[in-house]
Amino acid sequence: MNPDIIKERQNASFDVEKVTYILDGGPEKTKRKREIETLVINDPDFDEVDPNFLSRSERYDQAVRKSAQMILKIREYGISDPEEIYFYKSSVHPGRPEPLDLHLGMFLPTLLNQATPEQMDKFFMPAWNLEIIGTYAQTEIGHGTHLRGLETTATYDPATQEFVLNSPTVTSIKWWPGALGKTSNHAVVLAQLHTQGKCCGLHAFIVQLRHMDTHEPLPGVMVGDIGPKFGFSEVDNGFLKMDNVRIPRINMLMKYAKVEPDGTYLKPPSAKLTYGTMVFIRSLIVGQSAISLAKSCTIAIRYSVVRHQSEIRAGEPEPQILDYQTQQYKLFPLLATAYAFTFVGQYMSQTYHRITGDINQGDFSELPELHALSAGLKAFTTWTTNAGIEVCRMSCGGHGYSRSSALPDIYVEFTPTCTYEGENTVMMLQTARHLVKSYRQAKAGQQLSGIVSYLNDTERHHVQANPASSRPIVVDINDPSNLVESYKLRAATLVELAAKSIQRELQMRNSQEDAWNNSAIDLVRASDAHCHYVVVKLFTEKLSEIGDTAIHSVLSTLALLYALHGITQHSGDFLQAGLLTVPQMQQISGRVKELLCTLRPNAVALVDAFDFHDKKLNSVLGRYDGNVYENLFEWARKSPLNATEVHESFHKYLKPLRSKL
Amino acid sequence: MNPDIIKERQNASFDVEKVTYILDGGPEKTKRKREIETLVINDPDFDEVDPNFLSRSERYDQAVRKSAQMILKIREYGISDPEEIYFYKSSVHPGRPEPLDLHLGMFLPTLLNQATPEQMDKFFMPAWNLEIIGTYAQTEIGHGTHLRGLETTATYDPATQEFVLNSPTVTSIKWWPGALGKTSNHAVVLAQLHTQGKCCGLHAFIVQLRHMDTHEPLPGVMVGDIGPKFGFSEVDNGFLKMDNVRIPRINMLMKYAKVEPDGTYLKPPSAKLTYGTMVFIRSLIVGQSAISLAKSCTIAIRYSVVRHQSEIRAGEPEPQILDYQTQQYKLFPLLATAYAFTFVGQYMSQTYHRITGDINQGDFSELPELHALSAGLKAFTTWTTNAGIEVCRMSCGGHGYSRSSALPDIYVEFTPTCTYEGENTVMMLQTARHLVKSYRQAKAGQQLSGIVSYLNDTERHHVQANPASSRPIVVDINDPSNLVESYKLRAATLVELAAKSIQRELQMRNSQEDAWNNSAIDLVRASDAHCHYVVVKLFTEKLSEIGDTAIHSVLSTLALLYALHGITQHSGDFLQAGLLTVPQMQQISGRVKELLCTLRPNAVALVDAFDFHDKKLNSVLGRYDGNVYENLFEWARKSPLNATEVHESFHKYLKPLRSKL
Repeated sequence: MNPDIIKERQNASFDVEKVTYILDGGPEKTKRKREIETLVINDPDFDEVDPNFLSRSERYDQAVRKSAQMILKIREYGISDPEEIYFYKSSVHPGRPEPLDLHLGMFLPTLLNQATPEQMDKFFMPAWNLEIIGTYAQTEIGHGTHLRGLETTATYDPATQEFVLNSPTVTSIKWWPGALGKTSNHAVVLAQLHTQGKCCGLHAFIVQLRHMDTHEPLPGVMVGDIGPKFGFSEVDNGFLKMDNVRIPRINMLMKYAKVEPDGTYLKPPSAKLTYGTMVFIRSLIVGQSAISLAKSCTIAIRYSVVRHQSEIRAGEPEPQILDYQTQQYKLFPLLATAYAFTFVGQYMSQTYHRITGDINQGDFSELPELHALSAGLKAFTTWTTNAGIEVCRMSCGGHGYSRSSALPDIYVEFTPTCTYEGENTVMMLQTARHLVKSYRQAKAGQQLSGIVSYLNDTERHHVQANPASSRPIVVDINDPSNLVESYKLRAATLVELAAKSIQRELQMRNSQEDAWNNSAIDLVRASDAHCHYVVVKLFTEKLSEIGDTAIHSVLSTLALLYALHGITQHSGDFLQAGLLTVPQMQQISGRVKELLCTLRPNAVALVDAFDFHDKKLNSVLGRYDGNVYENLFEWARKSPLNATEVHESFHKYLKPLRSKL
Repeated sequence: MNPDIIKERQNASFDVEKVTYILDGGPEKTKRKREIETLVINDPDFDEVDPNFLSRSERYDQAVRKSAQMILKIREYGISDPEEIYFYKSSVHPGRPEPLDLHLGMFLPTLLNQATPEQMDKFFMPAWNLEIIGTYAQTEIGHGTHLRGLETTATYDPATQEFVLNSPTVTSIKWWPGALGKTSNHAVVLAQLHTQGKCCGLHAFIVQLRHMDTHEPLPGVMVGDIGPKFGFSEVDNGFLKMDNVRIPRINMLMKYAKVEPDGTYLKPPSAKLTYGTMVFIRSLIVGQSAISLAKSCTIAIRYSVVRHQSEIRAGEPEPQILDYQTQQYKLFPLLATAYAFTFVGQYMSQTYHRITGDINQGDFSELPELHALSAGLKAFTTWTTNAGIEVCRMSCGGHGYSRSSALPDIYVEFTPTCTYEGENTVMMLQTARHLVKSYRQAKAGQQLSGIVSYLNDTERHHVQANPASSRPIVVDINDPSNLVESYKLRAATLVELAAKSIQRELQMRNSQEDAWNNSAIDLVRASDAHCHYVVVKLFTEKLSEIGDTAIHSVLSTLALLYALHGITQHSGDFLQAGLLTVPQMQQISGRVKELLCTLRPNAVALVDAFDFHDKKLNSVLGRYDGNVYENLFEWARKSPLNATEVHESFHKYLKPLRSKL
C-alpha cells in the first residue's frame, strides 16, 4: 500500500462504510452487491484480456464469449431480481455495453409488453433460451429523434396474410441498433404500417433476419456492422436494409393495435403506457451519470494524492498534487456533483416506482411532471458528467491519456448518453414545454402543485418586485435552505424570461412554432436552471435523513460546495435577478475556497465510499492501494506492440530507406 | 452534389475564395498549399486503409510506411521551406501525428541548436539520412512539468571518459516520448549530470538505444511502447529504463555546458535561448487549435444543412437542422471562435518572427511578455477548442459518434495539447505571474507598455471608481471598440482581484508561496480574462485590414458575435465589475440571437473558406458535396466486422448456448 494513501485514509473524519450504505441504499444492498461482485471476480470463466490490447473483432469475440457465460451463470445461480442481474452484468462487463444488452433489455421486454398471448407462445421461450436473439430496430440512417419521420414500410398483403417490409430509400436504412450487425437473428422493426391503401403510422414487427442454423442473412435482408465508433467497441451496432422481406401476419406485435386477416386496422386504445418506459430509462441514465462521475472522481482523487509534482514552497519536496488549490477546484465540485447525482438517481427511481403504482391504479396525474423532470435531468446530469469526466482525465496529467487510466474508456462509453434515449437539447426543450405550460396555467390563476409550484403567481411576484435589488433573497450563504430558495427563484426568473420571449415573438406576428424556435436558447436555459434547482433541493433534503453527526457534517460540506460553486458558475443569473449582491458574490468565492480546504482531508475517504472494486474500476491510476507507477509499467509491457522487440516495419520500411537517401 | 448544400452556397453574400486568402495569409500561400496537397493526394504511394479499420500494430505499420515515403519525396521534390514541409506532412498524415515527428521536429533541431561542430560532424549526417533515428526523452513516469524533479542520472567516469546512464527508480523510467518505443535507435536523453561528486543539474545526452543493423535494444537498455492511448495510435510513445548504459563523453551535447575530459564541469552562459523554442511551439499550438476547431465546424455545419430532422411547423417537411436556434447557438459562436483563433495564430507567428529578429540582435525586452502571452493563449485556445470539438460532435446526433464523422479522431488527436508542452493550468499560472508582476510595477508607479499597459494605475482607476455602477463602460453594444474596452477592464478588475487576494493572504501571515497557492483560482481566472481580452482585441484589429465590403461585413458580424457571446458566458464578471448593466445584458442576449440569424445564410460559405480538401477532412458528414448517407453506408460496409457475413463467435459461443439452456 502506498504510504501517501494510507495517511489519507487515516485522516478521514467519518466512517466510510456507513456512507457506502447511504449511497447503495442500505447495508443489505451493499452486502448483496459485494456478494455478486465476488461471484464474478473469482470466476475464471470471466478472465479477459484488456480490451484495449485487442482488435475490434477480438473485442467483440471476447464480449460474446463472456455474455454467453453470463447468461448460463445467472440462470444457474437463479439470480432473477432485475437490480441483481444488473450488478452481475456490470461486474462481467465493467463499464461496457455488451452484445446481448438489446436482447435482454429491449427485445424480451418488448415481447412482454406488446405481444399477444399467442405471440408469447410463439416467440417468448425461444427468445428466453437464446435460440431467437433479438434487437430493437428503430432509428434509421436519416432519422433519429423524430419518430414520425421514419421511412421503413410494412405493407399488408391480405392475399398471403403477410407483411412486406421494405427500406425504400438510403435514408430509411435501419442504423445504430445494438447487436443488429452480427449477433441478432431477429429484430423488432419499427415501420410505417400500410394496409388497405392507408398509412396507419408506426408499428412494431418481429422480423427474422438470419437463418436459425447457419446464421446467414435471409433473402432480401442486407445486414451488417456500422463500423467503428467512439466507444461501444464490444457492440455490433448494425444496419438493416430490407427488400421485400415477407413476414406472417402474427409477427406484427398486436397487444394494442391490430391488423385483421382482411387488412382491417384497429387502433390502440392509448399511447400513455410507452411514456412510462422512457421515464424509467431516463431515470436509469441519471443513475449512470452518478456512477461514471463517481468512478472518474475516484481515479482522479486517488491519483492526486499519490502523484507529487512541482513545488509550492521552494526547496521542499514535491507536494501531493491534491494540495494545489487549482486541483481541488477541478475535482471537489465534481465529487460533490457525483454525490448529488447519486441522490437524484435514488429519488428518480423511488418516484418512478411510486408513480408506477399509481399508474397501475389508473392515476396518471403525476406522470407529466415526472416525464418532464426525467427528460431535463437526463440532459442535465449527462452533460455535466460528460464534461466532468474530461476534467478528471485532464487533471491526471499525461497518464490520464493512457488507456490504463480507464478514463478514456469511461468517457467514450458514457458520452453517447447525451444523444441516445432522447437528444439532450430536445430533452431540455421538452422540460421547457412543461415549464412554460405550467407558468401559463399559474398566470391564468391555476394553483400549481408539485415541483413547479414555484411558478405560482404569488411566489413569482416576490422576485419580480426587485430586479437587481439591493435586498437580496439570500441572507446567509451558509444556509442551504436559503440557497435552495435562491436557485428556485433563479429558475422562476428564467422560466418567466423564456415565456416572455415567446410572447414578444407572438406579438411580432410570428407563428406559435417560430416563436418557440426563436426562444429556444432561453427555453433551454430555463430548463437547465429548473434542473439545477431540483438537484440542489434534493441534495439538501437528503441531508435531513442522515443521523450520523460526522457523516452529516461532511455531506453538508459537499452539498454547500455544490450549491455555492454552482452560483459562482452562473453568477450573472443570480446578479441579474437581484438574488445576490456583488459583495455576497465575492463572499461566496471566498467561501468556496474554504470549503475546498475543509474537504481536503476527507477527499480519499469520500471516493472510497463509492466502493468500486479495483476490478470494476479497472484503472491503474485509481488503484485502491495507490501503487500506480509499478503497475503502469507492468501494464505497458503487455501492450501488443511489445510482443516483439523489433517491429517488422523497421525491416520493411526504415532500414531500406538508408540506401535511398 | 446535394441540393441543400448547393442552395446554401448560392446564398453566400461574399467571395469565399478571398476569405481563404485572408485565412491563409495571401493568395500565393493558398496556391502553394493547394499545389502541395495535390501532389500528395494524387500520389498512389500515399493510399491508405482507413486507420479506424486497422489494429494498433497495423496502424503503426501503415504510418511508418507513409512516413518513409514522405521523407523520400520531400527530398526528391526539394521542398525545404518549413511551412511547406508542414503542409506536405499534414497532407500525408491528415490530422495525425506520425512516427518520425520527433526525429524531424525535436531530434534534428536539438542537434542543430545544442551540438558542437565536432558533434555535428559525428551525428548530423547519419541523422539526416535516417540511419540514426532519434527522439527526445524528457518526461519520466513520475515526472512531467517539473524539470528539476527528473531522476535519470548521467554520471561521468573520467577513467573511461564515459557517462553512465541510469534509471535509479521506477518513477525515473522515461515515459511518453513519441517514437521512443519502436522507431528510434537513438534518443536525446535529459538526465541529471553528476561529475566530480556533484550534481550539476539537467543536461542532454545522445544515447544509442538499439543496434544499428538488427534494431535490437542494446545491453542495459529496456525500451518499449507505453501501450494504447486516447488517440496517437500511429505513434509509439515509449518507455526507457537504463541500467548502467555507457556512452562516450562526446555524446553529451556541449554547445553550451561542458564536461572536460577530467570531469570538470563548465556552466552554460545563459538559459534564455530555450525560452524562445517554447514560445514558438506554443504559438504553433494556437494555430493548431484554430485548425482543429475549423475542421470540426466545417463538418458540423455542412452536415447541419444536409440533415433534416423533426419539425418546427406542424405538417411541413422536416427542416434543416441548422434552422433550429439551438443548433445555431451551438455552432456559430464556435465558428466565430475558429476565425478568432486563426487570426490570433497569425499574430503570434508574426510577433514571434519579429521578436526573434530582435533577440538575434541581443534585444530580449519583449520576450517576457510574448512568453507570458504564448503560455496563456496556448491554454486558452486549447481548452476552448477541446470543449468546442465535442460540442460540434454532439451537434451531429448519433452519426457524430461514428468514426466516419472524423470528429472522434479530431478530438482524441487534439486533446493532448491541453497537457503537453506545458499543462494548461500551469500555463495560466505562468501568465498570471507576469500579470501580477506587471500590476505591482504599475502600482509602484512604473509606466507599463505593451499588452499589459491596461494595468497602469490611471487606467485602473477608471474601473475602480464605479463598481456595480449604473454608468456602464459600454455605451454601444454594437461597437467593437466599446467591447474591447469592456473586456480590457474586466481583465484589469480580475488581475486586481487576484493581486489583492495574494495581499490578503500575506497579511494573514501566510508565506509568499502559500499566498500564491491560496489565490490560484483567482489567478487562473485573471489569466483567462486577459487572454479573452487579447483575442477580442486581435479579432477586432484584424477587421481594419479588410478592404472588401462584403467580407468586412460578414467578418464583423462574426467578431461581434464572438465578443457578445463571450459576455453572455461571463455575464457575472461584467456585472460585478460594473461594466454592463442588467438591461444591457438582456439587450446583448437579444442581439446574439439576431446575429445568429444574420450569419445563417453565410454559414456554409464561412466554413468552405477554411478550404479543407475532402481528403484532409476525411469526414463522411463533412463532405463538400453533402452526399452523406450513401457514403456513410459505403464506409460501414468496409468495416472489418463485415469481412464475413457470419462472425465466428456465433458458432463458438451463441449456437452452443442453445443446448445448455
